[in-house]
Amino acid sequence: MTAFLRNTWYAAAWSTDLRESQLIGRTIVDLPILLYRDAAGSARAIGNRCPHRFAPLDRGRLVDGVIECGYHGVRFDRSGTCVLIPGEDGRAATNMRVPAYSVVERDQIVWIWTGEGPADASRIPDVSDRLANPKFAFVTGSTHVKASYELLADNLIDPSHGQFLHGTVLKREGFFEAPHEVRQEGSTISSERVIRDVEAPAAYAPYLSDRNARVDWFTRAQWDPPGIFRLDNGVTPSGKSRDEGIRRSGLHLLTPETATTTHYFYAAVRNYLLDDPKADETSLQWQHTVFEEQDKPMLEAVQSMMGTEDFASLHPVLVAIDQPAMRIRSTMRRLIAEEQRREPTAVT
Amino acid sequence: MTAFLRNTWYAAAWSTDLRESQLIGRTIVDLPILLYRDAAGSARAIGNRCPHRFAPLDRGRLVDGVIECGYHGVRFDRSGTCVLIPGEDGRAATNMRVPAYSVVERDQIVWIWTGEGPADASRIPDVSDRLANPKFAFVTGSTHVKASYELLADNLIDPSHGQFLHGTVLKREGFFEAPHEVRQEGSTISSERVIRDVEAPAAYAPYLSDRNARVDWFTRAQWDPPGIFRLDNGVTPSGKSRDEGIRRSGLHLLTPETATTTHYFYAAVRNYLLDDPKADETSLQWQHTVFEEQDKPMLEAVQSMMGTEDFASLHPVLVAIDQPAMRIRSTMRRLIAEEQRREPTAVT
Amino acid sequence: MTAFLRNTWYAAAWSTDLRESQLIGRTIVDLPILLYRDAAGSARAIGNRCPHRFAPLDRGRLVDGVIECGYHGVRFDRSGTCVLIPGEDGRAATNMRVPAYSVVERDQIVWIWTGEGPADASRIPDVSDRLANPKFAFVTGSTHVKASYELLADNLIDPSHGQFLHGTVLKREGFFEAPHEVRQEGSTISSERVIRDVEAPAAYAPYLSDRNARVDWFTRAQWDPPGIFRLDNGVTPSGKSRDEGIRRSGLHLLTPETATTTHYFYAAVRNYLLDDPKADETSLQWQHTVFEEQDKPMLEAVQSMMGTEDFASLHPVLVAIDQPAMRIRSTMRRLIAEEQRREPTAVT
Repeated sequence: MTAFLRNTWYAAAWSTDLRESQLIGRTIVDLPILLYRDAAGSARAIGNRCPHRFAPLDRGRLVDGVIECGYHGVRFDRSGTCVLIPGEDGRAATNMRVPAYSVVERDQIVWIWTGEGPADASRIPDVSDRLANPKFAFVTGSTHVKASYELLADNLIDPSHGQFLHGTVLKREGFFEAPHEVRQEGSTISSERVIRDVEAPAAYAPYLSDRNARVDWFTRAQWDPPGIFRLDNGVTPSGKSRDEGIRRSGLHLLTPETATTTHYFYAAVRNYLLDDPKADETSLQWQHTVFEEQDKPMLEAVQSMMGTEDFASLHPVLVAIDQPAMRIRSTMRRLIAEEQRREPTAVT
Repeated sequence: MTAFLRNTWYAAAWSTDLRESQLIGRTIVDLPILLYRDAAGSARAIGNRCPHRFAPLDRGRLVDGVIECGYHGVRFDRSGTCVLIPGEDGRAATNMRVPAYSVVERDQIVWIWTGEGPADASRIPDVSDRLANPKFAFVTGSTHVKASYELLADNLIDPSHGQFLHGTVLKREGFFEAPHEVRQEGSTISSERVIRDVEAPAAYAPYLSDRNARVDWFTRAQWDPPGIFRLDNGVTPSGKSRDEGIRRSGLHLLTPETATTTHYFYAAVRNYLLDDPKADETSLQWQHTVFEEQDKPMLEAVQSMMGTEDFASLHPVLVAIDQPAMRIRSTMRRLIAEEQRREPTAVT
Repeated sequence: MTAFLRNTWYAAAWSTDLRESQLIGRTIVDLPILLYRDAAGSARAIGNRCPHRFAPLDRGRLVDGVIECGYHGVRFDRSGTCVLIPGEDGRAATNMRVPAYSVVERDQIVWIWTGEGPADASRIPDVSDRLANPKFAFVTGSTHVKASYELLADNLIDPSHGQFLHGTVLKREGFFEAPHEVRQEGSTISSERVIRDVEAPAAYAPYLSDRNARVDWFTRAQWDPPGIFRLDNGVTPSGKSRDEGIRRSGLHLLTPETATTTHYFYAAVRNYLLDDPKADETSLQWQHTVFEEQDKPMLEAVQSMMGTEDFASLHPVLVAIDQPAMRIRSTMRRLIAEEQRREPTAVT
């Protein structure tokens, strides 16, 4: 039995991926969920398992904004209430209902509250700094990974593996000599390294006004619960602010599917070539190379090596670079424990 | 541990599918079974696991009407008795034997008795009304479904899902307004609806002598244990008997493979275009469209949603249309319980 | 929990298959193992699971003869000792280590000692009679089988199944009439049959100096623990020694991967057409036909029939031809029990 954080907002989909008339069945923190848009176009989420005969509702259809089960035609509205049972003369059994989940669409993300209690809209992660910011252009995508969200979090908060797993494209002289700054403010954890006063790497130089200028190269990762990552990589003319340089500022969102599988949503954000479709394509290709070809096979191999064993029970030998990842893990353990103390029956 | 009804006759194969010299390994109610024809062409069934070293006998061959294991050449006759052990000078260990199952071939079906005690030939289901009746033509087929026989039975006894799952081809105005007649006589359970005095649907009109005649449209399903279904769909000139109209009268036989998988045998029976090979082809295409493309994906999705959970433990919310299906389930529970009381060790 | 013999040498690879710069991850007796060649070209084996974050080391690379994990760059030498942790200023945690396994390369085989205690080089199987013998030519290969090493051993020690499973190519008149000689000397077990004074079979006749000579046909299998098989098949001019005839003298080595899967290494050895590449090709084709097309599907079907049940618990009905196989099984049981008595915690 895996404990997930439940009283929180997870990214359920990119807004653009949830199209009108489309029913998406998606397991989130082990809950079978149906995502759709109602008659007004608003994103909605209800349980995906019909309580009548357990058909997945995503095999049904939308009729006047309510969900009709594809097997026997039982209909549910956005509150999960049954509004029609064919052959029942308009009656609808009061126990014929599915759970309803609060959904808010913001910054092109469909956020879902998976908790038992009332949703707390004030806690929706604000990612407008990345996704609603005139300084940035971005492209989005998503993928499914056969590894736990914890292994993905370990990966995203740690820029050091770039020197090895992504060595062909990310290796930098002086990386490990640069001070490793790990910070925690409340539940926000960050990890950063800056290599100062070097030649601009070939990957950034073309976008600098003076491609021969000396630069500071930086790599930064920041996490907020339950799985919000802001990655920042780039170069600035030596001593200048980051916005004066070339920034690649990813937003990466992890949503647990099961204990060992994860939905991964990413936005590749940049502060250069803002209206260049070719640059969009390059960003997506880069994400594909780095994640699909390098991170994902490694993460799935690690999960496979671990089997269903608990991380701690395998006695990992931890080192300095693990510090931010361990802070994430301990913060999540604390948040989950707090939640379980408040609602002892809510998490199974 | 799933309890199946064991002291009963199941369809093991269509006669035409069990060809001379062919060895078919097929699991039925969790029993590994070998089907073949002996030297006289009679259908036979013995256990499929060689007791010597557990080779599946279906990888062997027929030698003079007895089965020779393909691994070490041990031979078994139709009673499961070992008749030759190579290298043993003609001796055959008396404990070298496989179970033998009574098999009767009737109405083009190979029926098998899976019980422990002697087979009761008087209980072989009589389906000659469908398969040996000059009023009807038919074509047969079979498929394998990753869903329990109970989910398949729920499906076959319930014409209402046709209005949704098969809506593109079976939707009828007035379906739910027509009285739903559920009958039980002994262990025979039927479900029927008639929509009276309507225009003939396009699917039937061409075969009526007067295609503009008003008709009664009917849909009927009848079940007998353990999984014998007679489906009847068609139209009759208003007020006339069913044989005076156009009937599509399927025979559907369910044979459990395991707790969550089923062998499904079907005959598409009709009372029109009796000698028309094109109509045979149309019947099979219809069965393919309706079952393989619509029912089967839904049933397998439902099984997947249920996992290995018991139906009752998931607390289905039952409604009026479920009545015949629930009668089947309770009848089967009763029959299995009776059998287990008689032979407490027979069912595992 | 399967008990394997652990304090023994297993074949881990053919020398030619472990190429310079290559990292082979291979599970042996349930242990995840990394095989590679160090800077001096010597075969080495260490644990394949990085103790830092459980990445499989075979996804890493060789740097100056030491293994660098492909994820975070932790390095291990051939003793399993960590020699570098990136970002740790040259320090290496003393508990950052993987097991090291003794490896000896001899007769073109990479032998590995999987025991806990010190490796006993004097016990490395000597197979030079087959693989370093000027009388013989040979070709090698390997395959992976989804069946336990015990089922493979049953198969290799028993020539009788050749009369059935390989009947198309190996059937011989008089096979079962020929005396079956089963011998045991210490832990060496052999099984032999000779059919005397017959015409040379077509498969051997072309290689005899007098292809019309009467011959003795023989088939012999010999086992040494834990899974060393010497198979000998051939013909000799009647009454002459085996080296005066045509011999096909396979060496077959079984290495358990898991309880139900096996690495199988084979050498097809012959005493004729010694320098003929065409004969090499014919030998490999023969091995493919007999094993990949006939034995392997049968063995995997038997394993599948047995599931995860223990052989004895299924109550096999044993016969005369099983005698050598049963001696192997009882010898292995005795050796494993002896080992467990000596090191009660070593085998899990």
